[in-house]
Amino acid sequence: MFFHRQELQFTATPDKPDAIFARRMQEVLGGQYGEITVAMQYGFQAWNAHIPGKYRDLLYGIGAEEFGHVEMLAIMIAQLLEKAPVEQSEAAAASDPVLGAVMGGMDVQAAIVAGAGVRPVDSNGNPWQGSYITASGNMLADFTANANAEMQGRVQVARIYNMTDDHGVREMLSFLLARDTMHQNQWIRAAQELREAGVEDIPVPLNFPLSNEARDHSYKYINFSDGQAAAEGSWASGPTPDGKGEFTYLDGPDTSVPMPPPTQPDPRLYGTDAKPNLIDKAEGVIKDKLS
Amino acid sequence: MFFHRQELQFTATPDKPDAIFARRMQEVLGGQYGEITVAMQYGFQAWNAHIPGKYRDLLYGIGAEEFGHVEMLAIMIAQLLEKAPVEQSEAAAASDPVLGAVMGGMDVQAAIVAGAGVRPVDSNGNPWQGSYITASGNMLADFTANANAEMQGRVQVARIYNMTDDHGVREMLSFLLARDTMHQNQWIRAAQELREAGVEDIPVPLNFPLSNEARDHSYKYINFSDGQAAAEGSWASGPTPDGKGEFTYLDGPDTSVPMPPPTQPDPRLYGTDAKPNLIDKAEGVIKDKLS
Amino acid sequence: MFFHRQELQFTATPDKPDAIFARRMQEVLGGQYGEITVAMQYGFQAWNAHIPGKYRDLLYGIGAEEFGHVEMLAIMIAQLLEKAPVEQSEAAAASDPVLGAVMGGMDVQAAIVAGAGVRPVDSNGNPWQGSYITASGNMLADFTANANAEMQGRVQVARIYNMTDDHGVREMLSFLLARDTMHQNQWIRAAQELREAGVEDIPVPLNFPLSNEARDHSYKYINFSDGQAAAEGSWASGPTPDGKGEFTYLDGPDTSVPMPPPTQPDPRLYGTDAKPNLIDKAEGVIKDKLS
Amino acid sequence: MFFHRQELQFTATPDKPDAIFARRMQEVLGGQYGEITVAMQYGFQAWNAHIPGKYRDLLYGIGAEEFGHVEMLAIMIAQLLEKAPVEQSEAAAASDPVLGAVMGGMDVQAAIVAGAGVRPVDSNGNPWQGSYITASGNMLADFTANANAEMQGRVQVARIYNMTDDHGVREMLSFLLARDTMHQNQWIRAAQELREAGVEDIPVPLNFPLSNEARDHSYKYINFSDGQAAAEGSWASGPTPDGKGEFTYLDGPDTSVPMPPPTQPDPRLYGTDAKPNLIDKAEGVIKDKLS
Amino acid sequence: MFFHRQELQFTATPDKPDAIFARRMQEVLGGQYGEITVAMQYGFQAWNAHIPGKYRDLLYGIGAEEFGHVEMLAIMIAQLLEKAPVEQSEAAAASDPVLGAVMGGMDVQAAIVAGAGVRPVDSNGNPWQGSYITASGNMLADFTANANAEMQGRVQVARIYNMTDDHGVREMLSFLLARDTMHQNQWIRAAQELREAGVEDIPVPLNFPLSNEARDHSYKYINFSDGQAAAEGSWASGPTPDGKGEFTYLDGPDTSVPMPPPTQPDPRLYGTDAKPNLIDKAEGVIKDKLS
Amino acid sequence: MFFHRQELQFTATPDKPDAIFARRMQEVLGGQYGEITVAMQYGFQAWNAHIPGKYRDLLYGIGAEEFGHVEMLAIMIAQLLEKAPVEQSEAAAASDPVLGAVMGGMDVQAAIVAGAGVRPVDSNGNPWQGSYITASGNMLADFTANANAEMQGRVQVARIYNMTDDHGVREMLSFLLARDTMHQNQWIRAAQELREAGVEDIPVPLNFPLSNEARDHSYKYINFSDGQAAAEGSWASGPTPDGKGEFTYLDGPDTSVPMPPPTQPDPRLYGTDAKPNLIDKAEGVIKDKLS
Repeated sequence: MFFHRQELQFTATPDKPDAIFARRMQEVLGGQYGEITVAMQYGFQAWNAHIPGKYRDLLYGIGAEEFGHVEMLAIMIAQLLEKAPVEQSEAAAASDPVLGAVMGGMDVQAAIVAGAGVRPVDSNGNPWQGSYITASGNMLADFTANANAEMQGRVQVARIYNMTDDHGVREMLSFLLARDTMHQNQWIRAAQELREAGVEDIPVPLNFPLSNEARDHSYKYINFSDGQAAAEGSWASGPTPDGKGEFTYLDGPDTSVPMPPPTQPDPRLYGTDAKPNLIDKAEGVIKDKLS
Repeated sequence: MFFHRQELQFTATPDKPDAIFARRMQEVLGGQYGEITVAMQYGFQAWNAHIPGKYRDLLYGIGAEEFGHVEMLAIMIAQLLEKAPVEQSEAAAASDPVLGAVMGGMDVQAAIVAGAGVRPVDSNGNPWQGSYITASGNMLADFTANANAEMQGRVQVARIYNMTDDHGVREMLSFLLARDTMHQNQWIRAAQELREAGVEDIPVPLNFPLSNEARDHSYKYINFSDGQAAAEGSWASGPTPDGKGEFTYLDGPDTSVPMPPPTQPDPRLYGTDAKPNLIDKAEGVIKDKLS
Repeated sequence: MFFHRQELQFTATPDKPDAIFARRMQEVLGGQYGEITVAMQYGFQAWNAHIPGKYRDLLYGIGAEEFGHVEMLAIMIAQLLEKAPVEQSEAAAASDPVLGAVMGGMDVQAAIVAGAGVRPVDSNGNPWQGSYITASGNMLADFTANANAEMQGRVQVARIYNMTDDHGVREMLSFLLARDTMHQNQWIRAAQELREAGVEDIPVPLNFPLSNEARDHSYKYINFSDGQAAAEGSWASGPTPDGKGEFTYLDGPDTSVPMPPPTQPDPRLYGTDAKPNLIDKAEGVIKDKLS
Repeated sequence: MFFHRQELQFTATPDKPDAIFARRMQEVLGGQYGEITVAMQYGFQAWNAHIPGKYRDLLYGIGAEEFGHVEMLAIMIAQLLEKAPVEQSEAAAASDPVLGAVMGGMDVQAAIVAGAGVRPVDSNGNPWQGSYITASGNMLADFTANANAEMQGRVQVARIYNMTDDHGVREMLSFLLARDTMHQNQWIRAAQELREAGVEDIPVPLNFPLSNEARDHSYKYINFSDGQAAAEGSWASGPTPDGKGEFTYLDGPDTSVPMPPPTQPDPRLYGTDAKPNLIDKAEGVIKDKLS
Repeated sequence: MFFHRQELQFTATPDKPDAIFARRMQEVLGGQYGEITVAMQYGFQAWNAHIPGKYRDLLYGIGAEEFGHVEMLAIMIAQLLEKAPVEQSEAAAASDPVLGAVMGGMDVQAAIVAGAGVRPVDSNGNPWQGSYITASGNMLADFTANANAEMQGRVQVARIYNMTDDHGVREMLSFLLARDTMHQNQWIRAAQELREAGVEDIPVPLNFPLSNEARDHSYKYINFSDGQAAAEGSWASGPTPDGKGEFTYLDGPDTSVPMPPPTQPDPRLYGTDAKPNLIDKAEGVIKDKLS
Repeated sequence: MFFHRQELQFTATPDKPDAIFARRMQEVLGGQYGEITVAMQYGFQAWNAHIPGKYRDLLYGIGAEEFGHVEMLAIMIAQLLEKAPVEQSEAAAASDPVLGAVMGGMDVQAAIVAGAGVRPVDSNGNPWQGSYITASGNMLADFTANANAEMQGRVQVARIYNMTDDHGVREMLSFLLARDTMHQNQWIRAAQELREAGVEDIPVPLNFPLSNEARDHSYKYINFSDGQAAAEGSWASGPTPDGKGEFTYLDGPDTSVPMPPPTQPDPRLYGTDAKPNLIDKAEGVIKDKLS
């Protein structure tokens, strides 16, 4: 169960409205790596968890914080939009550079659809979608996804930090940046703890029998381009992070097989094939049955 | 530039057709973490790279391999579909349990749209989409995204491995599993090398001035749920992976601010507000201008 | 069957082109609550209707009108785009404020994709989609959906009315506003008639046996936030609109159950669980079968 | 801010796993009218509210309950999937009717992507999307949207109630049905209260000056089909619900204008027009400037 | 304007319900190349037409027919679903092969969402979307798109013809096949007429000055794969269909340029680059301005 | 297999950055008819081909070229974005017309998400999706789709050619225009060759027995609008392109059937029907079984 309190975790009031920046801020609310994504991602990972205890508690504990961040950003965006201009015709824009800039830079649906309101969309107006989240049931894979999400999120907040000089907005962003710092550290540490505890390990998934894998191909870097510098990387020689092999470098594939012959599906699927006369056109039956 | 050779990197021929398994295999071709995703992700990361040399060469070198895996899976799926049944009415299904199972389990669009062919979709028929990929220009964030993609991918291949006992299919999957093992190791190692070289570091992005961050909140685990076990994790005490702090644990938020007052946008956006009489309904103008 | 006449129901000619306003008008053509939505929604409701007679005739009668409104808006938008500028480089925009405003405010795909033409998209360029419509076969639910669609539609038209001062455009909008007024009244009245006739009633669906419902929980307002004012509403005490109960107010949930234990799916799905050694890694079989 | 408690509002444990029903239940979790939709819808309406007090408290109070319902359904679905079969080949399905039925009826991504887990998708695997919600800032329109959402939701729950005979599942559904009954009554009552209080009224939006509307067309039912029965409805004669007019019935449109002439955009958009020689093909300039 | 008549163009009544076939038929209603697509495509092409007369009349004349086909298919699908089973639990499916087949093969949302009704989706439940249509304003390109749509549509109808033996269904399909035959012929002929009349021609668009094109590369087949047989085609030698050149064949590219150097965007976008110390981390300003 | 070479087929370096034009160029990279579409379309058609030899080699040979064009455009876009402005607040835009124009005209996600990088999206930021491509297995239909794609693509490139005066950009566009000219000619010629060789023919698909088609309706133009000019076209009289009939012209449909009666699905789907008392509300069973 979730309980709501009519308070915010941190100050979220802009010095002044700014409909252009409101649109930019939609990215970190409703974009691929926005707050809706992490809130839902941690929720679904918790609901799909198979172990009680610290890992699941962690997911529940931070998931609810992220729903609060969704609200914090939503409240901020609504305030940034509060004075969004109503008269927005081409003629008005042409005579007023400020209005012209706002018209070009703001999300028109914020006005038309939401009445100067916030929406669950990104900075280009693409609706948030469930396919942004990851919750596979495998915790090492998922915590790596979480670390990535917090990294992408902090990069995006850092970028929009420089797109405003509003002190109120920047104060809230400085808080979100700090929380992203925490969450990057946290997921990296939690992923490490999973490996230290032997609960999960690379190559993920731990429990898939390596004997089912074509082990000859497990540690070879195979270069399919003509740049040579990748051979210098630590991924091209030396021990592998999973502790089970040594990297090697190949300048192109060392295996190949001929392309299998084209398929010959049932002629009644009416693809184009080399035997177009298989069907008796008067009768609609196959004259010469496929073997 | 890309050049094509009419060979495959590894054997990709099933022992027998299996339209049900063909659908499952679509997930690792056209799903969120399928081969199209990694091929396009590495391509866009290369095109957005800002440094010449080993990291970009790595992206080019593996990206082209993944386009070959797209082809390998596509060829396999087309063969699995080769004998997909054409008569699929309810009556036929009812009298033939095999047909009934196939009808329920196969992707109907494989027959109707592609004529027993492969399509750029996942196992539920959702089209592949550009929002599956990540290419932010920040390499540590992106390599972490890549490690995650290879983990999720290997988990999915491992899962479908158990959904078939076709030797030809399993042989190809054993190869893909091995390559996923390589790529997990590779991206983890490459991410580590970025940090060792000081090119990028956590908290990502390295270059954002920490003085702009509310550092008081950078290393606190704040529990917004009522489970207590997360306090036991290594993310709740001890040094942080970024080497710049110590984790602390809080059982709930230590800051809060009152909810800001509701917004009062221009009444001509016709939201519902407390002063519904601002507009002169005969004239259509605002009687009492907002300050 | 549908028959087309090369006339419009009302005048739809702008005084002058305005590519910026054309984009705004796309919202009420191809947006979530645009004319394509209501035309398709009434069509599908008619095709899914289970009763012949006045309700179905109503759906057919208004559905065809709405397809005409789709055309009316499409024709208007094409005219608004007629003089959309072709030279749109950054340099040109920088030196010409009018052009700069137009470039920022118009839909670039209107020029590149449609050659100054109209498209089935909303004001942010999101394609119209079938998931915007509602046609459940339950008429009271669907007529309520229709009332909502006409309300949202009229709000949006009212908003864009203030974004232009073109007399031709406003004249057409004044007509659409009048039709939305009619349709709001109509669906509200039709929903009421369904209830008066006993054909359908709240709680929708009428025919689901109330004895299958946990009636103890059917009329309680349960407050999961900390605001107290909702207790003052007529939804917190007094008789319920369905005539079958009395509202009560609870300041928080009066029931709760412990969270069920985490799931333990088949280990061959390779989720992370507390018993990672269930699989014999050499053999790939489950050693200790799940009960 | 949101706070999480590791309890559920009501019992949510199935008697036995049922992967087929799990898929059906995804509809009322992640579908157009599932619990994610109402939770997010009430949240965004609260954040976009312009009046403090009872209406906004109502949105906050019920929004948080709905997030708890998201969790309740998610936990239930994960349990229903707990024993989802792993071996799912065509051969296995053909020899085992139970397995064949499960393979056809379950969501394959629940196994492959989530490891027998729940996902933010509907019963066909379409990801939940932000365009399902409505939050316009106009409360009468939005509360009507809410009433519709609760009606559609209760219809869907009633339908899936008959698709299972699992007592545990039915017990939870009986609770959800009761809450939908409450919420239907609540939104209908709240919409009525808005009108009684004069805060908002039909035609929505109240504040748009009716003098801007083509009032001649505001109360006419215009029949664009050839069924005659709609003339018998209370929407074709008698007083209108907004109290401002009388319905009339027209058997076809009483207005029409000729189709405007086709547009003539800039020839450098290369549409096909009647004057294909406007451009000097050697020079690439327009010979005969458009007026 | 569109007018509706409560008749169908052709008989559309199945001999018996068949929920499995209903799902297949959704493809030709709401799929990429279904009837909704062609109806909307011809409509938007008409609204974007720049020439009055026969071409635009053709678009209007056939567009309205296609809207009638949408209705015909919708009515047929609703009838096929009329007896869709309600009890659909795993247990029921396991004991009844017919039910098991139906459950696996039917669209579950047809029951849960639409109450045995038709929906604007394809055979996998993907909603119809506006990006399926093409209306560029260039008639030769668009008529070619139309020819393709009618070809794909007829292939799909031919495929599903073999998936049923219901006489009523087949009768309607035989009519749709005939209309697709007409429309293929019609668009091919109309495209030819555009060229004969000199209104438009290949290479489309006619009016773009060929002097702006790098004519050296306009008629070369360049082989980027290692198959040699394409050299035998009539596209590799001989006159080109546009009458302006001769095809030639190249076994690989005859031009290449080095890859441009990586980009160096503003360091405050926090991408990873070779000069990570450009930003003064204490001050947040760029130390060494980019030139 | 695909192999990558770190060279481009043609020069792709702009004279100067132009973030506005970068957004326009995204259309021909990631739009419905952009380079990603044709690359993937030719790839999937090759993988679904049923005949070895010249047609499949053609698909492989050109498909790989198109992947190179994806790269060429991506590299160009990244360079156009290289100097995208970072400070983009409303205040800054208001005081600087150049910045205001750029803010309105550029894709904000290019900065926030990709750090001045290219993305797999169109010019409105809609992600590329798999449903853009066509690969039916029927080569005449698919080659017609290809001809259309190359026509739409060349129209779009021609349009954006006039939106820049950058010599470097125009040089690359002149090359793409030439390749589109080649590919239009090529697909038209290849489609013709399929027909000449009797491998496939119109009406597509060749092999569907015409005796299954309602031949009375195969060559009639039926006018569902009131324009008369379409009777003048060569599609209204004279021989049909398939060589099997004569066009005729009808001013309206010559067949019609009454609308079938509304459906009566199982009352436990809770649609609204004329017999609402079928269910015993106390017992939840159907009192009067449907026949």
